Amino acid sequence: MKKCLFLLVMMFFLKISAQENALIKTQIKSEFLNESREIWIHLPMNYNADIAKKDQYSVVYLLDPEINWEYYVASVKYMSSQPYAKIPELIVVGIKNSNRTKDFTPTKSFKVDPYNKENKLFADSGNSDNFLSFMQKELKPLIAKQYRTLDYNIFVGHSFGGLAVMSCFYNHPEYFNAYVANDPSLWWDQSLMVNELNIIDFNQSKYDKKILYVAQANNISQEKTWNDDHNIAFRNFNKQLQKTKKVFDYQYHFYENELHGSVSMPANYDALQYIFRGFQTDVRNASDDPQKYLLKPYQKISTRLGIGLTPSLQYYNFLKVFAEKRGYKDAEDFFKSKIN
Amino acid sequence: MKKCLFLLVMMFFLKISAQENALIKTQIKSEFLNESREIWIHLPMNYNADIAKKDQYSVVYLLDPEINWEYYVASVKYMSSQPYAKIPELIVVGIKNSNRTKDFTPTKSFKVDPYNKENKLFADSGNSDNFLSFMQKELKPLIAKQYRTLDYNIFVGHSFGGLAVMSCFYNHPEYFNAYVANDPSLWWDQSLMVNELNIIDFNQSKYDKKILYVAQANNISQEKTWNDDHNIAFRNFNKQLQKTKKVFDYQYHFYENELHGSVSMPANYDALQYIFRGFQTDVRNASDDPQKYLLKPYQKISTRLGIGLTPSLQYYNFLKVFAEKRGYKDAEDFFKSKIN
Repeated sequence: MKKCLFLLVMMFFLKISAQENALIKTQIKSEFLNESREIWIHLPMNYNADIAKKDQYSVVYLLDPEINWEYYVASVKYMSSQPYAKIPELIVVGIKNSNRTKDFTPTKSFKVDPYNKENKLFADSGNSDNFLSFMQKELKPLIAKQYRTLDYNIFVGHSFGGLAVMSCFYNHPEYFNAYVANDPSLWWDQSLMVNELNIIDFNQSKYDKKILYVAQANNISQEKTWNDDHNIAFRNFNKQLQKTKKVFDYQYHFYENELHGSVSMPANYDALQYIFRGFQTDVRNASDDPQKYLLKPYQKISTRLGIGLTPSLQYYNFLKVFAEKRGYKDAEDFFKSKIN
Repeated sequence: MKKCLFLLVMMFFLKISAQENALIKTQIKSEFLNESREIWIHLPMNYNADIAKKDQYSVVYLLDPEINWEYYVASVKYMSSQPYAKIPELIVVGIKNSNRTKDFTPTKSFKVDPYNKENKLFADSGNSDNFLSFMQKELKPLIAKQYRTLDYNIFVGHSFGGLAVMSCFYNHPEYFNAYVANDPSLWWDQSLMVNELNIIDFNQSKYDKKILYVAQANNISQEKTWNDDHNIAFRNFNKQLQKTKKVFDYQYHFYENELHGSVSMPANYDALQYIFRGFQTDVRNASDDPQKYLLKPYQKISTRLGIGLTPSLQYYNFLKVFAEKRGYKDAEDFFKSKIN
């Protein structure tokens, strides 16, 4: 008998999953970057529907959307689909590249092109402070003005993009709440990010409640044919960080089966799970005793993340229907009071 | 120095990833189903480009595309992007639902609706043989006729869809080459799929080289509030299968952090990795010594899967450019001969 409920939920799930929102592409004129930049925006499925009209959403700022957009948005949609949601619905903002070496590197550094000794690679490097100012002072305010955002922001980058994420976390931890660095270029400028671990005091309150998720790909097998600085820097980083006094929430994962260019998809899935751990609620329990099985878990996450995360109107509505079906009169009244 | 190459590859990668193909939606009139059915088709990125004009592709047949389409297609695109590709580019075919209980269940069985005792749930069940005939005799020939397919077909389903996949594997192993069953409804009809393990001889040659990937979600915590038949059937299935003499390639994975409704995305990622294990080639080695580092791995996979898998024209072209840059004259000539 109990199984039938399980299936009813699945059937409801199938119905609501068919709708979708289109990708929004827009231009933002930046004084910091001295150019116009293309921005991609994903809004949650029912963002414009009546039932969600007061819901607010955390925002992911995603670098290199050219590679990462499709699977990232698809992952967020899948992972946030009730009744099995592991994360809340999110707004995703992708910043299209113009010159990623310039934007993502914190210092000026270069290498000589092995095919043409006259040619300096990374000659444009060292402009990430401007890029981060663009994000904090131009892009984030625009998104907050135009959309119903919750003030919880996640910054995601890979390789040089991961370097930008790390550099932002070190120097401007107040810009974002969670930082996801996928196989970041820790080798950059003689292991700058490793050396700075000794300089910065990570015990300060401005790092409190912040999350840093670092994914390392398995580049060991490529060490002989490719680079070794990357692996050496990572080893030193891990060693040093263990000794570092820190108040932030640090999670590191080594991806045995992933190379530098394949690690982002599984790592981004895991990072979102990590940031919102404890979010998943059992729809039967939550519709029966919402104080214990719905509000308490949300309060716990809110305290951990330092924000006011509440169940979405859509989820309240979902639970109301469920409570009605099962004849949970008190809970039904509770859900109605939340929706109206 | 070596690092620069690494980055050059990344830069090339960024450029080629920006293009994409739109989703094709079409109708197919089925005599077996006695209705028209909507089919969704994804073609590889450069399917229509000159450089890929002779490439052939394995095909994934995906059930419940309403839930699974977006992340599945995005995963395939990400996982098959060179130079880090773990799987070949694939054609994905989604079969939109009309009545999934009817289509996916192999026998007639029902449960009484707990809210309305007059109402029999699953009254339409027991039609999967017709549905599988539709796939084998109508849909697959149509796809093979219209597109450049390699005769390697993967069948993917979840829950009742996983039941259809298992039932097809048991009774018609010749229909597909690899079978992916995500948290399949092994409880169906008094554990039909467990009982049949004792009846069918899995040692026959028609099961040789076939792959069965079974993912089990962690529904243990839900056992008390929800169903228990599902977990009991899975335990019996695992126990029984260990004793079963079988020639097929079986892979089972338990997903500790996933529930019934969230397991498909990570499981589908893992299943594709498993099916095409050994596919990933190192672009530097492969462009230097293609016999050893390119053709040999492809031959090995081809033997294991029982097909003729060859590097795509696009990848040959990619490696040619790489060999040129590095001055690998012999390899360059080899690649040119393959492209022309």
